[in-house]
Amino acid sequence: MRWAEGLIAVDWGTTNRRAYRIEPGGRLADEMEDDRGVTSVDADGFPAAVAEIRARLGDRPLLMAGMIGSNRGWREAPYVPCPAGLPEVAANLLWVEPGRTAIVPGVCHIEGAHADVMRGEEVQILGAYAAGMIPADALCCHPGTHNKWARIADGRIAGFRTVMTGELFNLLREHSILADLMAGPVAPGPAFEAGVRHGLSHDDLPAELFSVRARFLLGKAPREEAAAYTSGLLIGCDVRIGLRDAPPGEIFVMGRPELTELVAAALAVAGRTTREIDGEEAFLAGIRHLAELTL
Amino acid sequence: MRWAEGLIAVDWGTTNRRAYRIEPGGRLADEMEDDRGVTSVDADGFPAAVAEIRARLGDRPLLMAGMIGSNRGWREAPYVPCPAGLPEVAANLLWVEPGRTAIVPGVCHIEGAHADVMRGEEVQILGAYAAGMIPADALCCHPGTHNKWARIADGRIAGFRTVMTGELFNLLREHSILADLMAGPVAPGPAFEAGVRHGLSHDDLPAELFSVRARFLLGKAPREEAAAYTSGLLIGCDVRIGLRDAPPGEIFVMGRPELTELVAAALAVAGRTTREIDGEEAFLAGIRHLAELTL
Repeated sequence: MRWAEGLIAVDWGTTNRRAYRIEPGGRLADEMEDDRGVTSVDADGFPAAVAEIRARLGDRPLLMAGMIGSNRGWREAPYVPCPAGLPEVAANLLWVEPGRTAIVPGVCHIEGAHADVMRGEEVQILGAYAAGMIPADALCCHPGTHNKWARIADGRIAGFRTVMTGELFNLLREHSILADLMAGPVAPGPAFEAGVRHGLSHDDLPAELFSVRARFLLGKAPREEAAAYTSGLLIGCDVRIGLRDAPPGEIFVMGRPELTELVAAALAVAGRTTREIDGEEAFLAGIRHLAELTL
Repeated sequence: MRWAEGLIAVDWGTTNRRAYRIEPGGRLADEMEDDRGVTSVDADGFPAAVAEIRARLGDRPLLMAGMIGSNRGWREAPYVPCPAGLPEVAANLLWVEPGRTAIVPGVCHIEGAHADVMRGEEVQILGAYAAGMIPADALCCHPGTHNKWARIADGRIAGFRTVMTGELFNLLREHSILADLMAGPVAPGPAFEAGVRHGLSHDDLPAELFSVRARFLLGKAPREEAAAYTSGLLIGCDVRIGLRDAPPGEIFVMGRPELTELVAAALAVAGRTTREIDGEEAFLAGIRHLAELTL
């Protein structure tokens, strides 16, 4: 059993990567993070990029998740269709070097006209279930560049929907006519919650975005509130979409703590209770369980 | 009466400017266009930038509209509140040189929580009314970077709403994860109309945008259709917002012909009849009537 050697877990995204050395008992022993995301690595540069990680964290079995398995990554690991649990994901690891180096596939959801994909979040969501952080039947929200609302049924991802909230916020802050207004802080508070309330109760996002600028130009809202209001507006829209047909009960919000805090605040405005789960812990739990199943 | 000398009309936007020489009888005699939009002119460079136009088109009275009157332009011309007709706009021209050189103010609409602004479109909309292209009571749509839906009552702009459709499309095409999918053509047709139908009947824009990518990745939609579908989706959302509380009857769609064609196609999907009006003709009509009132 190779897992007896311990393990390296890699969360390899578009613009950066994080890698962790896990001891045989499961303890996190070391980690690294850098900006060698998949788009910074040449198509034939991945063996060397993986060797860098092993040189730094040790020569152990290595499981990689995220965009490394996309058409922009090392090798394309085909999506596992829903319902997808850890056993289905484990059975579809793409082994670059058998028993040593594998890419975790993403998950897809095709149902009628709906088509959706995730890569990386499945490790966190299913890891959280395997570690007992979420129950076998749950609604999970995973905020990020592309927020995922995932229905968990019987410990598997039964279906999900992606909302482009983080990316839209970044596009607006970096490149839009709102950019010069959006240097202010984003945190839960009155401006953020006003945006959430608008997003929850109106379906006029592309118009309300312009109103942010108009209210500033007409002296009806201060510059410092624009970023928080806009973030709240986008997250409020996102929550409105995510809560459609949602079951009652606690909602599990998973990911980077600064993002789960915002979504939890928005869900509170919508009258829902939440539990926040640290995405890194959930990721490590997911990789450990995949190792148990495959090494 | 200085208008006896003829006139120069300038439509001065953020990234480019167009100027026209109009003869005393109203005939368009010459024109120029270049990329000297307001953001390319230094704060103290506007007198020289205007002198360039006169050197090219003649030393005549000159009326300028658009972003030249914004806080990024030459001088800020305060917005005229709705209801705003040509007489109100004419009375609020900002004269840089009395009787010779003026900036046309924009129009604002403040009503309850709603706040909105336009700069430049008011000349076209009110010019179209003055020239008999639209009736005294009408719903106008002016597509562009920031689409305007304007209610015309008794020949005045009674209220309006801006939808950030063109800007969102450009952000997505240039900077988003959809960018590499969006090189295809945008024109009325099945993919565009499918996007329109989705936008008209769903309020899930930030989720459906991601679906464009997911459907491509999963082989459910061809790359060539992504730009047209996305354009249709955004315009369908825009039309859904614009038709809220809209009166029955023909809708007047004004602006650049390649944009009015798209919006007219979307309004046809929504079951509405339209009349398309060339924005340049409407602009020239508006400036001529402002000259009648002020020179």
